[in-house]
Amino acid sequence: MKIGVFDSGAGGLSVVKSLLAHKLFDEIIYYGDTARVPYGPKDQNTIIRYSLEALEFFNNFEIDLLITACNTVSAYALAEMNAQSAYPVLGVIEPGVLALENSLLNKDDNILIIATRATIASKRYENALKKLGHTNITSLQTGLFVPLVEEGIFEGKLLEATMEHYFSEIEQPKAIILGCTHFPLIGEKLKNYFNNEPLLIHSGEAIVEYLEARYDLFRKKEATDLKIFASDNVAGLRKIADSWL
Amino acid sequence: MKIGVFDSGAGGLSVVKSLLAHKLFDEIIYYGDTARVPYGPKDQNTIIRYSLEALEFFNNFEIDLLITACNTVSAYALAEMNAQSAYPVLGVIEPGVLALENSLLNKDDNILIIATRATIASKRYENALKKLGHTNITSLQTGLFVPLVEEGIFEGKLLEATMEHYFSEIEQPKAIILGCTHFPLIGEKLKNYFNNEPLLIHSGEAIVEYLEARYDLFRKKEATDLKIFASDNVAGLRKIADSWL
Repeated sequence: MKIGVFDSGAGGLSVVKSLLAHKLFDEIIYYGDTARVPYGPKDQNTIIRYSLEALEFFNNFEIDLLITACNTVSAYALAEMNAQSAYPVLGVIEPGVLALENSLLNKDDNILIIATRATIASKRYENALKKLGHTNITSLQTGLFVPLVEEGIFEGKLLEATMEHYFSEIEQPKAIILGCTHFPLIGEKLKNYFNNEPLLIHSGEAIVEYLEARYDLFRKKEATDLKIFASDNVAGLRKIADSWL
Repeated sequence: MKIGVFDSGAGGLSVVKSLLAHKLFDEIIYYGDTARVPYGPKDQNTIIRYSLEALEFFNNFEIDLLITACNTVSAYALAEMNAQSAYPVLGVIEPGVLALENSLLNKDDNILIIATRATIASKRYENALKKLGHTNITSLQTGLFVPLVEEGIFEGKLLEATMEHYFSEIEQPKAIILGCTHFPLIGEKLKNYFNNEPLLIHSGEAIVEYLEARYDLFRKKEATDLKIFASDNVAGLRKIADSWL
C-alpha cells in the first residue's frame, strides 16, 4: 500500500518516523510545503487553498491514502480535501483524541493542549475532548517552539526560557497533547518541565494506533520506501530527514 | 509622489514608520506577503519568484518608486525586480552600508551584522563593507528574533535568553547593522545588551538618509496617505500597523 504524507514543512517527518517504525506501508510519498511554511499563523482560507493545492502534487502518484501530518491542516482543511480527492484523507486530530481516550484518564484530569495559534483557535481538540466528557482542559498556543525546533534547538537555556515563558502559570497537567508535529522533538523536555509526570499524546504514535485498529488489510512490511519532496529547499528537508529518521 | 513598499510580512512597517516621520511622500502603498512570510529561510529561486510576483500586485497602482523593505528580498531579488519594472526598485542594503560609512567609524572597528539566514548567506552587507575597507566584521544569523517580534515580545526574560543564546560569545561591537526589518523593534534592547555602546544601523532611517541625499525632487508633505495590503490576514497586519505606527 502506497500512501502520501502531507505537511506544511519538515515537522511531519515526526509522523513518518512512527509510520516507518511500525512498517505499515510499502511506500510513503512525503510532501512538505516548505516554501510556505508555517501554516500556523495563516488565515483559514489560505490554509484551505494551500492544502487543496497539495492534492495536485499527490495527483502525480497513485496513492491509496493521504495523511495530513500537520495539525493546522487537519484542523481546517480535512473536509475540503476529502471532498476533492479520490482517496481518503486522514488528519491527526481524531487519532490524537482517541489515543488520549484509550489512555483511561479520568474526565476531570487536567489535559493541556499545546499547538500553533491556528490549531488552538480552531478548538478542534478542545471540542472533541469536551464531547467525550472532559471537563478540565487548558488550550495554549506555543508557536515559538516551532522555529526553535526548526533551528535544531532541542535542549538548553533558550528552550528552558521558552517553556518558562509559556508554562510558568500553567497547572500541572496529567496529559499533554502535542498538537503540532514539531513538538515530539522536544517531547521529553516538555515532560521533564512538568516533573516527568504527564502522558504525552504524539500524533505519529496516535495515527499508527488508529490505523492498526481500523485497517485490518495492513500487514507488516519488510521495509517502507520513503520518497521526499518539497516546494522549496528540498535538499534542506532531506538533510533534516536524515538526522531525524 | 506615490511609492510602494514591499515586505515579506509586517516587518517593513518599521521602514514605513521612518518614511512617515520624515514626510517624504504623498502616498505609500504597502504590500506584505503575509501568506508566505518568512522569506528568510527560503531558497534564492523562491525568493526571486515571490518578489517578482509582488511586482504584479504593484501593477494595480501607478507608483513612482518601489522600496523593498525586506533585507532578504534586497539581498537576492533587486536586479531581477529592476529588470522587470517600469519604476526604480530600491533595496535597504546599500542605504544601510552608506549610513554606516557616514558614521565615520574606523576601518578596524568591530561591526556586527545580524540578519536572517538567507541575508547572512548572501554576504551582501559583508562584501559591501569589505569593499569599503572594513576589516573587522562579524556576520550572525539571528532568525529567532523574527518570531519573537511577530509574537509581540519586545522585552523580558525570553528576549534576554535569546540574546544570550546568540551573543554570549560575540565580541563587543562598535556598530550593529539591524539587517532585518523586525530588529528595530528590539533595537534598544540589543543596544542595552552591549552596554548601550554600539551605534545601530536601522534600514528605515538609512533609506530616508539615502533618499534625501539623492532625490532633490522631494519636498516635505503635509501628510502621507498610507494604504496597507496583504496576501493573507490583512486585518492582522493592519492591527500591527496601528500599534507600531
